[in-house]
Amino acid sequence: MTRRQLHLNAFLMNTGHHEASWRLPESDPYAHVDLAHYVRLARIAERGTFDSLFLADGPQLWSSAGQRPAGALEPITLLTALATATEHIGLIATASTSYNSPYNLARKFATLDHLSAGRAGWNIVTTAGAEAARNFGLDAEPAHAERYARAAEFLDVALKLWDSWEDDAIVADKAAGVWGDDAKIHPPRHRGRFFSVEGALNVPRTPQGYPLLVQAGSSEDGKRFAARYAEAVFTAQQTVEDARAFYADLKARAVAAGRDADHIKVLPGIVPVIGSTEAEARANERVLEDHIVHAHGVDRLERLLHLDPGTLDLDGPLPADLPPESAIEGAKSRYTLVVELARRERLTVRQLIGRLGGGRGHLTFAGTPDQVADTIGLWFESGAADGFNIMPAVLPSGLETFVDHVVPILRTRGLLRTEYGDHHRTLRERYGLPRPANQHVIAPALV
Amino acid sequence: MTRRQLHLNAFLMNTGHHEASWRLPESDPYAHVDLAHYVRLARIAERGTFDSLFLADGPQLWSSAGQRPAGALEPITLLTALATATEHIGLIATASTSYNSPYNLARKFATLDHLSAGRAGWNIVTTAGAEAARNFGLDAEPAHAERYARAAEFLDVALKLWDSWEDDAIVADKAAGVWGDDAKIHPPRHRGRFFSVEGALNVPRTPQGYPLLVQAGSSEDGKRFAARYAEAVFTAQQTVEDARAFYADLKARAVAAGRDADHIKVLPGIVPVIGSTEAEARANERVLEDHIVHAHGVDRLERLLHLDPGTLDLDGPLPADLPPESAIEGAKSRYTLVVELARRERLTVRQLIGRLGGGRGHLTFAGTPDQVADTIGLWFESGAADGFNIMPAVLPSGLETFVDHVVPILRTRGLLRTEYGDHHRTLRERYGLPRPANQHVIAPALV
Ligand SMILES: Cc1cc2nc3c(=O)[nH]c(=O)nc-3n(C[C@H](O)[C@H](O)[C@H](O)COP(=O)(O)O)c2cc1C
Ligand SMILES: Cc1cc2nc3c(=O)[nH]c(=O)nc-3n(C[C@H](O)[C@H](O)[C@H](O)COP(=O)(O)O)c2cc1C
Repeated sequence: MTRRQLHLNAFLMNTGHHEASWRLPESDPYAHVDLAHYVRLARIAERGTFDSLFLADGPQLWSSAGQRPAGALEPITLLTALATATEHIGLIATASTSYNSPYNLARKFATLDHLSAGRAGWNIVTTAGAEAARNFGLDAEPAHAERYARAAEFLDVALKLWDSWEDDAIVADKAAGVWGDDAKIHPPRHRGRFFSVEGALNVPRTPQGYPLLVQAGSSEDGKRFAARYAEAVFTAQQTVEDARAFYADLKARAVAAGRDADHIKVLPGIVPVIGSTEAEARANERVLEDHIVHAHGVDRLERLLHLDPGTLDLDGPLPADLPPESAIEGAKSRYTLVVELARRERLTVRQLIGRLGGGRGHLTFAGTPDQVADTIGLWFESGAADGFNIMPAVLPSGLETFVDHVVPILRTRGLLRTEYGDHHRTLRERYGLPRPANQHVIAPALV
Repeated sequence: MTRRQLHLNAFLMNTGHHEASWRLPESDPYAHVDLAHYVRLARIAERGTFDSLFLADGPQLWSSAGQRPAGALEPITLLTALATATEHIGLIATASTSYNSPYNLARKFATLDHLSAGRAGWNIVTTAGAEAARNFGLDAEPAHAERYARAAEFLDVALKLWDSWEDDAIVADKAAGVWGDDAKIHPPRHRGRFFSVEGALNVPRTPQGYPLLVQAGSSEDGKRFAARYAEAVFTAQQTVEDARAFYADLKARAVAAGRDADHIKVLPGIVPVIGSTEAEARANERVLEDHIVHAHGVDRLERLLHLDPGTLDLDGPLPADLPPESAIEGAKSRYTLVVELARRERLTVRQLIGRLGGGRGHLTFAGTPDQVADTIGLWFESGAADGFNIMPAVLPSGLETFVDHVVPILRTRGLLRTEYGDHHRTLRERYGLPRPANQHVIAPALV
């Protein structure tokens, strides 16, 4: 029997996850609109036999362009270009259920799944923040619970659309002049609170049936949603204990929802800052911290914590009277994680900004390749993770270092495949998940 | 001085424009979801130094899947994949102003323009038909005039979004830690009848500034819209006289709108059915006609003419009491074109279906390569066309024949480039159009 295998996802972000990465001499400040940059990253990840790569997204201009690279190419479009430049790696795009319509979005993912021969994944987000809302005719951000209610209906409609063609709906009988079997095409005829969608999708069922469903909500509503729909979950965890508790909770919720615990993979994020010695790793980390503009960090922290500009004192602690998570309509769980991190480690605002600079709340780990592999192995084998979201601080170099120095160790330890192999071709197969049956087809055993 | 150059656009459609093309032995009935098929077509068109290729689209399942290949990959996504498989050719995707939001769509086209280094074009459509409306929460199709009112506001917002970054908004000053100049980013702050869009696009200005704007509306509203916004116009014309009148009318309207007549290119469609002799061309045409299932043709014609099922008699003429164009809320001008074609040539329903089978109303021309080149030359040189929308009846073979046999003749006659050359790189440059200035930048001469 082969050992349980680690799942690795490369979380790509222009010049890297560290907010100051763009300022390093090696970094290209125009990377975010450069196809060649992304092709290069995708090929490095594929060399490291990663399961997938991933692009975050939001339909708004995040923060000020003065501070750091702002804006990003639209992920589904970009990943389609990467599909033709790679062969094996899964392609996970973020898209919002709050600011898309199910017909258009289901169709785009179906297209990506066809064009990539079954490598599409969707990171389902509800999109926090008023900036996005105001780009779509709203004055304010919809309430958190409303966003998740819409997300659930969105998923139900999307699943109906992806299943609207049975796998064998195309007959292609040239002699008889019959191309498709209309009886095997099932219009959703959906009428719900948020959406009415009458007709079948205009794309046949895809290699995977539908894209791998990924999600990263960590609030109560977010976890309930994940337990019901998600096949992979991204999460930000600062300690292995918290990660274990999250892992156990999510698996239990999935089982309670009637699902197999193995069919929801949990991937915490890690920002590995690697050096050939521990001292070198720390020095690499310091170089990045030295490039942080603290005024920008204060600005962003005040937004995340919903504080008025000028509230925070760079060399003092966080204010004692912060509101509870329940009062936050934006990114609830990230709020709590940041506040708890600052309190647990008694960090000043300056120190907190340093800690967040790399991973915005994800675990930042500076060490040698062996130490990084140890941490990954420990989390993986002690019920805290099914794999990791690898978030290099600097790109492409951080991904290259991980692939050249950590991946070989993980392979030697039998935790990671040495090649993609031939019998797992789709993204869902790589994650060890079954191809979903079409909801309109009665399983043969039951007929 | 070089001669005025012909513009050629390859209108791609799975196995070809003839409705029965999929039934031929050479055709792949799964072509519509096959990336390799489209890559092959794009490369043939590029070998023929076409200006662009084009994909039609609608967010609904057109007609019955029983009749012929139904559904299509989403064009922007597909064209992105083609961008990486080609070097020069323009990539024009259809997208609807009725069933998209400006922020998302403007962003997708900006992404395609970046990824293709300035080769993106948008065929702007308002989407006729209740089927599409019902996939987006509506019970019926919005009125024709409403759709065009929304389209105009959509364009205004999209243009604001594409201009929301000045060309030099990215400063990339690593030493100072200043990435962008926020003063050169201009949020639209648009509040209109159909849309409210507050924030700047999250994609920097693109190589072309914005995609080439293409349009194909032929109704009064459609032509008014084209005169204001379109840089290239697709049109279905059955006779050179009608085409000349349309051409003159559109150029005059553009001039009246304060634009340069040369900055709106008119491209009628042509379905060339080619044979080495005229008899062979006619025989090729007959093979296609013989594969038409007439019951399907009747069904589609009844829909187009807004008639109840069973109204039409296959061997009789069209009914005398058809409603006037003004009563049609769908595809107005196509309705009139079809009715006039049938009356002018006194066609039975069966004959009309044969004539429409190839081009759905576009000019079908069967002849030798020289005859096809003559027709193209005549239209081009007598004020009926700036170029052509080439719509092969069968794909890929029809495009291959055109490129191998008609293109060399057009080149010999000095009407078509022999290679792409180096100083015209963007799609807009190939069409002989200037790169648009950013609306926020005062032209230097005026400062
Ligand atoms: C690794 C990771 C990636 C994320 N990517 C995005 C993203 O691209 N866009 C987005 O709007 N939210 C993103 N989120 C935020 C989550 O979707 C979610 O909104 C957030 O964790 C707060 O949880 P909640 O929505 O349940 O309150 C991401 C979260 C994590 C952990
Ligand atoms: C070559 C050509 C291609 C067209 N492609 C599309 C298309 O992809 N999607 C669509 O909804 N309409 C398409 N149309 C229809 C036009 O956009 C337009 O709606 C139609 O000509 C009727 O004109 P009107 O909208 O002004 O009434 C096309 C028309 C032509 C001539």
